[in-house]
Amino acid sequence: MLFHGSLGELQKHLKQLPGIGAKTAQRLALHLVASERELALGLADSLRLAVADYHACPRCLMLTDAPMCAFCADENRDDTRLCVVESTLDVYLLEQTGEYHGRYFVLGGLLSPLDGVGPDEIHLPELLELLRSRQVEEVILALNPSTEGESTIDYLGSLLAELPPTVTRLSTGIPFGGDIGYTSQVTLSNALLRRFSIE
Amino acid sequence: MLFHGSLGELQKHLKQLPGIGAKTAQRLALHLVASERELALGLADSLRLAVADYHACPRCLMLTDAPMCAFCADENRDDTRLCVVESTLDVYLLEQTGEYHGRYFVLGGLLSPLDGVGPDEIHLPELLELLRSRQVEEVILALNPSTEGESTIDYLGSLLAELPPTVTRLSTGIPFGGDIGYTSQVTLSNALLRRFSIE
Repeated sequence: MLFHGSLGELQKHLKQLPGIGAKTAQRLALHLVASERELALGLADSLRLAVADYHACPRCLMLTDAPMCAFCADENRDDTRLCVVESTLDVYLLEQTGEYHGRYFVLGGLLSPLDGVGPDEIHLPELLELLRSRQVEEVILALNPSTEGESTIDYLGSLLAELPPTVTRLSTGIPFGGDIGYTSQVTLSNALLRRFSIE
Repeated sequence: MLFHGSLGELQKHLKQLPGIGAKTAQRLALHLVASERELALGLADSLRLAVADYHACPRCLMLTDAPMCAFCADENRDDTRLCVVESTLDVYLLEQTGEYHGRYFVLGGLLSPLDGVGPDEIHLPELLELLRSRQVEEVILALNPSTEGESTIDYLGSLLAELPPTVTRLSTGIPFGGDIGYTSQVTLSNALLRRFSIE
């Protein structure tokens, strides 16, 4: 590492951010300290404030700066549907579709045995607790169709099989605007297997 | 923007960093506040500390946390050579080569009329002042061979023509390990025009 002192510390911290390597951290550190001192101080303030303001909603575990998140606090939402997502960001993205009016639950991760993420490292106990205490009719597993997502969906599927709610997952298939010629074989197989009749 | 409150502020500040777009800023903000709270606070501290500790060296204008930078303070360096660079990072990179033992001067930018960067926006007056007050024999312009770098080299070349020191620039050509077939026409022309005899 080229820098030492507090500039070196700054580079070290920046390098720990996802997607930022040693060279980018170096450039960012210099950029902030040499020519964007106001941005550096503003960023420091907003980091402190956001960490102080935000915490997990006691019910759905999404990040919120209120005692309870806006979705859990809203009495008009459908209590019989629970959408299980990986992270807070997914809640916002699903809300933007305007197609869902039920409740959410944030798992905080996906099962990944190779990375040491087992059922106790994500919020599975809290999810089961919540499902036992409430009258949920449908659990929607809105997780990525990745290796980790599929493992989590499989695991949750067998775990929830004993409980009353129906368990569904997001459809997989060719994305809108996609091209059959550029679609992977797995996606194309899925799209064919889950074909539906046109009305 | 999806977030509001202090999380939105954090996203806004992150988005102002070079190379970080709205989506990355969103992910980074959530990542820091949801799962890396200690990193967030460490980053905030190191930003404040680095901004407080570092300032421009009064002589060469590179960033330093000492009253005068290590290169200006070192009495064993060659006073007759002055290497002009764009930024503090370049000083460290040139030092790593171990091939240079003279002094440095940090311009703080390159001329770019389209972006409104003229001679007074970079440290040209300070450079001229320094050259008038010292016995420099060679000024090495170690600037990027980019459009802005070339303009700056041209401008500095004519400006310094009246002064005693010889003005040199870094060689341009095919990088070590490069491939003639993948080299741009300009680079290949330069390499041909500046060919040198093998010994």
